[in-house]
Amino acid sequence: MNRKEFRDLATPDEARAAIDSLALEGGIDRVPLEDARGRVLVARLDAELDVPGFDRASLDGYALRARDTFGADEADPARLEIVGAVHAGEKSDVVLEEGQAAEISTGAVMPDGADAMVPVERTDTDGGGDEVLVRTSVAPGDNVMFAGADVAAGERALGPGTTITPRDIGLLSALGIDEVPVRAKPRVGIVSTGDELVRPGDDLESERGEIYDVNSYTIAAGVEDAGGEAVLYPHAGDDQDELEGVLRTAADECDLVLSSGSTSASAVDVIYRVIEEQGELLCHGVSIKPGKPMLIGRLDDSAYVGLPGYPVSAMMVFRTFVAPAIREAAGVPAPAAATVSGTLARQERYEEGRHRLMPVGLVENGDGETLVYPVDKGSGATTSLADADGVVEVGPETDYLEAGESVMVTLFSPDVRPPTLFGVGEDDPTFSRVLDGLERPRYLSVGSRPGLRRLREGVPDVAVVAGPLGRESEAAELGGWEREWGLVVRPGNPDELEGLADLVDRDLRFVNRTSDSGLRSSLGAAVADFAEKRGTDRHEIVDAIDGFDLGLRAYESPARKVIDGDADAGLGLRETADRLALGFVPLGEQPVRVLVNPDRTAKAGVRELETALADVRDVASGERMTER
Amino acid sequence: MNRKEFRDLATPDEARAAIDSLALEGGIDRVPLEDARGRVLVARLDAELDVPGFDRASLDGYALRARDTFGADEADPARLEIVGAVHAGEKSDVVLEEGQAAEISTGAVMPDGADAMVPVERTDTDGGGDEVLVRTSVAPGDNVMFAGADVAAGERALGPGTTITPRDIGLLSALGIDEVPVRAKPRVGIVSTGDELVRPGDDLESERGEIYDVNSYTIAAGVEDAGGEAVLYPHAGDDQDELEGVLRTAADECDLVLSSGSTSASAVDVIYRVIEEQGELLCHGVSIKPGKPMLIGRLDDSAYVGLPGYPVSAMMVFRTFVAPAIREAAGVPAPAAATVSGTLARQERYEEGRHRLMPVGLVENGDGETLVYPVDKGSGATTSLADADGVVEVGPETDYLEAGESVMVTLFSPDVRPPTLFGVGEDDPTFSRVLDGLERPRYLSVGSRPGLRRLREGVPDVAVVAGPLGRESEAAELGGWEREWGLVVRPGNPDELEGLADLVDRDLRFVNRTSDSGLRSSLGAAVADFAEKRGTDRHEIVDAIDGFDLGLRAYESPARKVIDGDADAGLGLRETADRLALGFVPLGEQPVRVLVNPDRTAKAGVRELETALADVRDVASGERMTER
Repeated sequence: MNRKEFRDLATPDEARAAIDSLALEGGIDRVPLEDARGRVLVARLDAELDVPGFDRASLDGYALRARDTFGADEADPARLEIVGAVHAGEKSDVVLEEGQAAEISTGAVMPDGADAMVPVERTDTDGGGDEVLVRTSVAPGDNVMFAGADVAAGERALGPGTTITPRDIGLLSALGIDEVPVRAKPRVGIVSTGDELVRPGDDLESERGEIYDVNSYTIAAGVEDAGGEAVLYPHAGDDQDELEGVLRTAADECDLVLSSGSTSASAVDVIYRVIEEQGELLCHGVSIKPGKPMLIGRLDDSAYVGLPGYPVSAMMVFRTFVAPAIREAAGVPAPAAATVSGTLARQERYEEGRHRLMPVGLVENGDGETLVYPVDKGSGATTSLADADGVVEVGPETDYLEAGESVMVTLFSPDVRPPTLFGVGEDDPTFSRVLDGLERPRYLSVGSRPGLRRLREGVPDVAVVAGPLGRESEAAELGGWEREWGLVVRPGNPDELEGLADLVDRDLRFVNRTSDSGLRSSLGAAVADFAEKRGTDRHEIVDAIDGFDLGLRAYESPARKVIDGDADAGLGLRETADRLALGFVPLGEQPVRVLVNPDRTAKAGVRELETALADVRDVASGERMTER
Repeated sequence: MNRKEFRDLATPDEARAAIDSLALEGGIDRVPLEDARGRVLVARLDAELDVPGFDRASLDGYALRARDTFGADEADPARLEIVGAVHAGEKSDVVLEEGQAAEISTGAVMPDGADAMVPVERTDTDGGGDEVLVRTSVAPGDNVMFAGADVAAGERALGPGTTITPRDIGLLSALGIDEVPVRAKPRVGIVSTGDELVRPGDDLESERGEIYDVNSYTIAAGVEDAGGEAVLYPHAGDDQDELEGVLRTAADECDLVLSSGSTSASAVDVIYRVIEEQGELLCHGVSIKPGKPMLIGRLDDSAYVGLPGYPVSAMMVFRTFVAPAIREAAGVPAPAAATVSGTLARQERYEEGRHRLMPVGLVENGDGETLVYPVDKGSGATTSLADADGVVEVGPETDYLEAGESVMVTLFSPDVRPPTLFGVGEDDPTFSRVLDGLERPRYLSVGSRPGLRRLREGVPDVAVVAGPLGRESEAAELGGWEREWGLVVRPGNPDELEGLADLVDRDLRFVNRTSDSGLRSSLGAAVADFAEKRGTDRHEIVDAIDGFDLGLRAYESPARKVIDGDADAGLGLRETADRLALGFVPLGEQPVRVLVNPDRTAKAGVRELETALADVRDVASGERMTER
């Protein structure tokens, strides 16, 4: 194995400077007004006409010569001859002489000779309608909007760099402008590499080690969020010629090329070689965690950034270094500072002297304070960020942060709002439906025992636990129900399983759950009972069940192994079996309990959950809640 | 004139309740993952597979049986036989026995028999490469990500109501989901009426009283901002059958129909009639200013809201009543509360007992406090909102607000940022270019005298004044330049004008500027000089100039009158004449001075302007600044 080593790691500031030195700007687009919202004006727009373009009546009433009304009042109205009418959108041929008036509607052109108007409410007409009594005096200009009063020809309308709002579209409409010059969105090519990657929607062969390509669509969404235009290139695999071709095409067509995905040495080698031949490498490796293996350089006339392969690392690097550069090039202002200060929920240690970007979740405690907890499923995790609200940056000089320390969290976006309820614990389909009805819940299915432990540590609001638990919690119960568990088998139960005895005595492949799971606890208790009844040792029974030690984390996975033909029976719920149209051999019922953090009973999200749980008994007894 | 009166005005709360009672919800869209960003999930999505789908090596190194390494360290490494290699994306046929290891790359499937892996950094290979020395002991599971560790099959992935972020797209990608069920955007039909309205881009006949249709595109942009889909219907004019047809088509095709634009009685009558025949009118008229003439009802199966015709009123009503309902229907969360508290810059009086929505601008004073000033160009103004930052709501019981009173401003959107510099005063093309180079300036061209007055009142940062001014200001000068003014005439000056004498003695039509303008002041001074030279009275000269009293507000308007053939000469700048390819007869040079509010000299935006003004002398002497 011969791999490039990351020597001479750049500091985060050096990496930022390297990206800033690359020109990402696109050119100029001319877009129709209806597509201009949110785009950034590239040049000043001046008014080329007066708005309004004529002296305009502000109300319905009568156009007249102001001096004809001088001295008029309720008692002694001025009597004027009506010589015509002008409506909005009509050309007026009326010319007023002394003592004359013209009926006029709001927005109509003031007729020649008129210098003011009086609203209809201050007038009366005689029966005949050829005279109007004006019961007020008006001054020249009253109730008239003069040409150019709104916008004057030659006036500066919008400056370069303006991000066009609906209000600006109003101004541009008034000026008759139906096309505006805006900054072209920087085109960002996304090249994903790695033989193991499959595009979402295609079939996955797990036994070949295939995984879905997370980075392409995620980074594309990030690019669009930052004001760029994402261009996804066909997935290149690890074939060197193919990868080189894709990189060069992307560099030719885009302002910035982002590669990501491959962890293979050969892909890295191709990228290094292509950049060395056709461009320049400004930075390889940054002293940051996650994100060390970041490349920054030029490729032909395009900028190039190589993102780490792991999705969480790739997104963190993208957010921290690349998104600001795209926003800058797009002319999109940096989002309003969206930071929240909170209290770190547990101690964090840092081994390496690298700048650290720590994804965190937020939860409000009983006192309305924000607790901050790290979200980390390990370096290969693809999905941690969906459970996080923001990032805490920790400098390289910091070895640890104490629990209770105050930290500043940069939210992923200004509109991130922390969950109203934070729960952890057992996977349970009934609880999942309950969550659907809540305002903004977050639930991490870590299993019953870890859930209970976390509840004791004081971070989540509630924990959901199932089955018998060795150590009872002091936490109060918010609600609970029973669920039926047993063996999930092939449709129609062709092997005619009846219970545990079949697993012990017959040659059947079983799939278990991990010991985190409440189902596994109930199975353990059932096995102990069974052993006692047979008058034998529990270990003997366990050894006799093929697959008892193979525990899967996911509550549906044993059932899915049965579907795939990899097992004859799996530990699971009747509801899972029903939903996947599989057979089911009941072994018992187990309680599911929702336990609440004693400090949080008054929290709004907890009370919302408590109300929702009051309806649950029906659900557990077989009725399905309708999805909202 | 027989007009519907607005009796029984609804309160703002009643209007809100009426809109809430209308169902605006669209149905369900299924969108591809790449279009899912920002959309709102309509149903829960559960994981249908484990992520990863297999036990996966977390690093490059060797897969092995953990117990073979027990006790190994630097001094006494474990020696294992290499029996194969597994790469990412490859199916492995390797099966490890005791004492064996397999080369493995990051992301590859753990081979059968292996229960842990050791990173390559902790190993050595002998020259031959068929043995590996492992210099550390590992526990079962070390450096392995187990199937389902990231996401477990059956796990709740995203709940209904989730607004999809790039991070959620990462989670969906990992699950292989390439299409998601989201709330359809509510379809909002926009019907603009009024014979006087012309769509931007089309030709305008001002003499017919035509104006550009501001509401259609502006409201459409507002609809899209709120998460709806805007559908613009062809402009209906005031023809009753045509309007009725358009309204019914829109009601048939949309979840909500918004009409706006017409101020004509006949259009209002049609709308009343159609709604009475085909729907229900819940509310006609709301006790709010601006916005009184708002209609709320149903039209066939669609909701209907009639917006006021005046663009500012229409937008304010849309923002206050309609946008929240569209957001609710779209499932888009209300934007984070974006409010700013500030100090009212001047007293405001309110005559009527109506709830008032007052558009305001913001400016930071010298102490870093926010001053709030009303932005109001009069009820017919179309463009005031482009100069405003937010809204102050004033209850019907409030008669006036004192200057200096603290008010709460709701920003138009959370990303509104007040201008870095607020200037008022003379229109000037040089200054306009200077503004282009500044960060985020706002400039209201109100003319020299009003600008100076406002500067004295203490609201703007700077005022730009031109020409001679009766009353000198105490304000310090930040910069200045000279500009050449005179008569703008037809190209090539076919009438051979040489100066003021031609306007006085010959039969030429002249167009003047209003007395707000510094140009008009200089012309006034020149007329006085000319009268003195002729030994006559100033008034006689003025009377002899055809059009002297006709002042236009806009600095380009006189020149444009010359282009249109409506005048032989207009008051203007050489620069305007040059840019519009017209002839020019110089009458003099006048100073343009930028005066600064004494409290604001240290403000960042003022210093930025000061720096930019240092370069202006070159510009004024004929060089053009390049646009940024």
